[in-house]
Amino acid sequence: MGSSKTVRKLSPVTQVPADIDIANSVEPLHISEIASDLNLTPNHYDLYGKYKAKVLLSVLDEFKEAQGGYYVVVGGITPTPLGEGKSTTTLMSCMFLQVVTCLRQPSQGPTFGIKGGAAGGGYSQVIPMDEFNLHLTGDIHAITAANNLLAAAVDTRIFHEASQSDKALFNRLCPPNKEGKRSFSNIMFRRLKKLGIDETNPDDLTLEEIKRFSRLDIDPSSITWRRVMDVNDRFLRKITIGQGPEEKGMVRETGFDISVASEIMAVLALTTSLEDMRERLGKMVIGNSKANEPITADDLGVGGALTVLMKDAINPTLMQTLEGTPVLVHAGPFANIAHGNSSIVADKIALKLVGPGGFVVTEAGFGSDIGTEKFMNIKCRYSGLTPQCAVIVATVRALKMHGGGPEVVAGRPLDRAYITENVGLVEAGCVNLARHISNTKAYGVNVVVAINMFATDTEAELNAVKKAALDAGAFDAVICTHHAHGGKGAVDLGVAVQKACESVNQPFKFLYPLEISIKKKIEEIARSYGAAGVEYSGQAEKQIEMYSRQGFSNLPICMAKTQYSFSHNAAAKGAPSGFILPIRDVRASVGAGFIYPLVGTMSTMPGLPTRPCFYDIDLDTKTGRVLVYWVIFDRKYWHRSVFDGTERYVRFDRYRRIRYSIYNTVTGDFREAGWDWINEPL
Amino acid sequence: MGSSKTVRKLSPVTQVPADIDIANSVEPLHISEIASDLNLTPNHYDLYGKYKAKVLLSVLDEFKEAQGGYYVVVGGITPTPLGEGKSTTTLMSCMFLQVVTCLRQPSQGPTFGIKGGAAGGGYSQVIPMDEFNLHLTGDIHAITAANNLLAAAVDTRIFHEASQSDKALFNRLCPPNKEGKRSFSNIMFRRLKKLGIDETNPDDLTLEEIKRFSRLDIDPSSITWRRVMDVNDRFLRKITIGQGPEEKGMVRETGFDISVASEIMAVLALTTSLEDMRERLGKMVIGNSKANEPITADDLGVGGALTVLMKDAINPTLMQTLEGTPVLVHAGPFANIAHGNSSIVADKIALKLVGPGGFVVTEAGFGSDIGTEKFMNIKCRYSGLTPQCAVIVATVRALKMHGGGPEVVAGRPLDRAYITENVGLVEAGCVNLARHISNTKAYGVNVVVAINMFATDTEAELNAVKKAALDAGAFDAVICTHHAHGGKGAVDLGVAVQKACESVNQPFKFLYPLEISIKKKIEEIARSYGAAGVEYSGQAEKQIEMYSRQGFSNLPICMAKTQYSFSHNAAAKGAPSGFILPIRDVRASVGAGFIYPLVGTMSTMPGLPTRPCFYDIDLDTKTGRVLVYWVIFDRKYWHRSVFDGTERYVRFDRYRRIRYSIYNTVTGDFREAGWDWINEPL
Repeated sequence: MGSSKTVRKLSPVTQVPADIDIANSVEPLHISEIASDLNLTPNHYDLYGKYKAKVLLSVLDEFKEAQGGYYVVVGGITPTPLGEGKSTTTLMSCMFLQVVTCLRQPSQGPTFGIKGGAAGGGYSQVIPMDEFNLHLTGDIHAITAANNLLAAAVDTRIFHEASQSDKALFNRLCPPNKEGKRSFSNIMFRRLKKLGIDETNPDDLTLEEIKRFSRLDIDPSSITWRRVMDVNDRFLRKITIGQGPEEKGMVRETGFDISVASEIMAVLALTTSLEDMRERLGKMVIGNSKANEPITADDLGVGGALTVLMKDAINPTLMQTLEGTPVLVHAGPFANIAHGNSSIVADKIALKLVGPGGFVVTEAGFGSDIGTEKFMNIKCRYSGLTPQCAVIVATVRALKMHGGGPEVVAGRPLDRAYITENVGLVEAGCVNLARHISNTKAYGVNVVVAINMFATDTEAELNAVKKAALDAGAFDAVICTHHAHGGKGAVDLGVAVQKACESVNQPFKFLYPLEISIKKKIEEIARSYGAAGVEYSGQAEKQIEMYSRQGFSNLPICMAKTQYSFSHNAAAKGAPSGFILPIRDVRASVGAGFIYPLVGTMSTMPGLPTRPCFYDIDLDTKTGRVLVYWVIFDRKYWHRSVFDGTERYVRFDRYRRIRYSIYNTVTGDFREAGWDWINEPL
Repeated sequence: MGSSKTVRKLSPVTQVPADIDIANSVEPLHISEIASDLNLTPNHYDLYGKYKAKVLLSVLDEFKEAQGGYYVVVGGITPTPLGEGKSTTTLMSCMFLQVVTCLRQPSQGPTFGIKGGAAGGGYSQVIPMDEFNLHLTGDIHAITAANNLLAAAVDTRIFHEASQSDKALFNRLCPPNKEGKRSFSNIMFRRLKKLGIDETNPDDLTLEEIKRFSRLDIDPSSITWRRVMDVNDRFLRKITIGQGPEEKGMVRETGFDISVASEIMAVLALTTSLEDMRERLGKMVIGNSKANEPITADDLGVGGALTVLMKDAINPTLMQTLEGTPVLVHAGPFANIAHGNSSIVADKIALKLVGPGGFVVTEAGFGSDIGTEKFMNIKCRYSGLTPQCAVIVATVRALKMHGGGPEVVAGRPLDRAYITENVGLVEAGCVNLARHISNTKAYGVNVVVAINMFATDTEAELNAVKKAALDAGAFDAVICTHHAHGGKGAVDLGVAVQKACESVNQPFKFLYPLEISIKKKIEEIARSYGAAGVEYSGQAEKQIEMYSRQGFSNLPICMAKTQYSFSHNAAAKGAPSGFILPIRDVRASVGAGFIYPLVGTMSTMPGLPTRPCFYDIDLDTKTGRVLVYWVIFDRKYWHRSVFDGTERYVRFDRYRRIRYSIYNTVTGDFREAGWDWINEPL
């Protein structure tokens, strides 16, 4: 199987005005052509319009015996707040002949806020961008629906329990027939089993068993299950519900997260089959009973319905890069409180589709302490897959920052240090790169460093990075210009990755075994950060004790930590060591399958600025095309719209300023019409 | 164009156990076959899997010159709380050779609560049922996303305005470029025009104009825009938002409605083109400024983004009946606070597709005072379409109730009067039917009464209905058994409808002109109910005065009234007259395009019972099939699931009791295992 047939030849141009309209300049291929190049027949997928298809999970069964391809994970060094181009590096992989790129589905909320879309930038994009950034094939909508059905089930159950006796409750849950006989529904046997009740006939239950079965007795203060919405709605961060007169004063404080922060998104990313998803969704814990026992979705009778809502979402979505190579878009768990990696299912399907000698390039979060570590210890643990090569994306800019360069702040111009040659700063910063390399090598993979080149980088600076990378044990280090040149700009990277995959000779190993205690696992990860020790708050101690008692201590750990430093302190650049890592609290996503210690406070619901992106988004009602495409804030990238005969462009520049320009298609006049710093508080 | 080629021949069976598994017994046709029978090529639609396709709006342009078919609307008499089978009567229409049935998309929320799905019952179903009842093609999810983006924009704008001076606000909205020059984004010209500001250069605005432009000055207490969710979540009916520390104490009381109650759903149902949708979404009013001026989505800069979110939702979804005839599913506005009819776009496309001599059967709400009246005066007003025939569905059961039969309560057994012959009761109740007939005839259409036959109805009773219908001026009255027999059971109805369409000879006319005052329009509708007059609350008077002053008095009226009586009093059966109709409040859906007076209190967010439907919904993870299908509560209808070698069935019977039964596939043993009355408070 190979994807070489329809690789589209782009003709990159070098002048900025011509670089503008890349996404609009390419007519996407019908997705059935992309699928056909992967040897997929129409039985293997469901079309969603012309440019998207859901690849059915049954492909995995059909290709069970087929040998898979090479598995490459892309992570990065500790980034600046401007981002270092990891997504685009993942897309660069389209230079391989037989490749599938696996990406996360972006959250729709930020598309209308500040961030703009997330389809890669420049010549490294997933198209059509608007379909990628908006509803896609409805997976996030399904997650929202499932998450909120469970939330409604929780509050409604508390409400109904409050007004009914044990027997009345039991009578409603297991209604008797005309002869007075009762029966359990199938899902109820899950709760019965959990309670150790063997009876299969409801009439055989003792009064005590009736009470234990019927009354979940949820402690409202213990509920960790929040509602979600795929909208940047800061006013839902903290709310009081149940204030209607019919809810009888049963008010409760809670809040909404953005949908991708739902545990159901993490389940989708980590599941391996429909059966596995059914089990994970059923065992998600929403809080505790007053006796401190975990209460699950299946205890509430809703695990099956959640699975039904998610049954199509488990199929990854096939799309294409600008160059016509296949991309599987699937899942996008919040990188802080979850593991931030795309789905296992997509990677597994992709490996079968590329076949032996082919490549699957999958994205992990930035930097590798957050993204790659979770990829290895959580995602690979559940998938059973092992990568041969890990790419670490580095930029001269970020390394200068780690070497002691002035603070880089989104919305403020970069200091001169970042745009003029300073080899000393780069060299000093390479301690950060070196630690990412050695941490990643420890898993038994070959590490290739991709130096994502900016126009202001000098040869001496780039060479310094290259040398440091090789000194630190990287298999290779190559300079990439894929953003400006598409696949062509990453040919060297491709060659290096191929060699790295072909010559891996160590066994894969995890950073920690599952069987050790929660604390021991946390400490193992902290050590990889450079910490000298770990300090637990009283709350963290309490939670660890509770989860251990509840039987969850053998889960892997998903650290909720800033990505801006190896340590908990975002200002500690380079390779800090000797610090004590503070654990503020510990939570669990039991269905997804991990414990997440909180190192600091994580915002799970973004806001909107005074002038959100949506001001620049409209529909051309004549053609049905979206006007003003999504903005990428890493590099110069212009977005086009046409109003009344003049074309209008919006971009974020590398300083994260937003710029507006007017291009008159008749006169050819191109002028900047405005700009703003994005530095408002959100 | 015709759909006759693939009409599937069902073989209805008469024994109950064999009637059970109808939906599962039929393998749906690939939707491209259904499309092809309508002369649609793959360019005309986007596939969404194998059994759903979105028919593109461009079909309307392409078939602009084509002559359309006959247009038939299905309404009903004043119903009992059990429903009288209107959806199934709409589906019966599959007996026509050239037909498209147009249906509403059901809300997903109630599917998991008490109601179960809404795909028709027995042999009159839309398949696959699970796809019809759940995500479909994402339209309701798009509405949820758009509705909530607007809500977030409202609260965030108030927040940002509170902390910024006029000039700071202006600076953010129209940021200056390096030379200090500013520009308006395209959407801002909409607000400028509304404010009567002609300047196109922001620098030319006076300080006063800057203030008027930048500061929406929304009065929080006036906000009518609520958030929505497609989940039965009663605890969101009334909530307090903004309680997070970062929201600086700007708390506000608000709530969630179920998604189908969003004005955006009403817009989708009433729009006629992308351009029209853009305008309607932009002019939706979210509340007033402190100076009592209406604030719109375009004032907030978000009308374009809402349109982008809704750009695919405007394309109706093609599905099929059990018999393989085409169904267009599109929009499902809440029947109380909105107009409760499926979309104009779907009807328009359908009329072109069936062509001259073909039939489009579209559903209006029950009874015709609510559904058909709004169909005629709102939907037909905006579409420019006129029906030739209106079907009024009647049942002996409901007519007995109108004739003075004992109260019919969901969850209680029917009184003997309803299941034994009582011609007198039927005759007395026909005053209700007669008024629906004369009201409907007044629009200039031919009225055909469809008597939806129940097993307990006697010939004398059915003949009494027939006679009363003809006496009241119906074109014809026919007995239907489509529920038990599929299309075959409605052949006579089809023949009568065809004759009615071919022999219409009156001009179409509305009940009221738009130019008269809001009060005059309300009074015209009240008169059709039998009211002697209208009484307005102080609040209603205030609102009518405000909307008139704001320029909205020429909108049609959408009465929010109980469907259980012609009057405001659900207990007043038959054809009440001489009463005074009280108007409690008056609201406006300016974007959708109607004023809605509230006659009583309407719940816009349902709840879940102690044992919601979701207990009986699961996925067969081996086959990917949904176990236990959606339950229809009107007639005997069993739903199958297979666990551990035994089949399990759930149904709601006609008394709206839920029943569970176990069928052992090995022994053939079939026994009832339980039942319950659905009479809990929601």
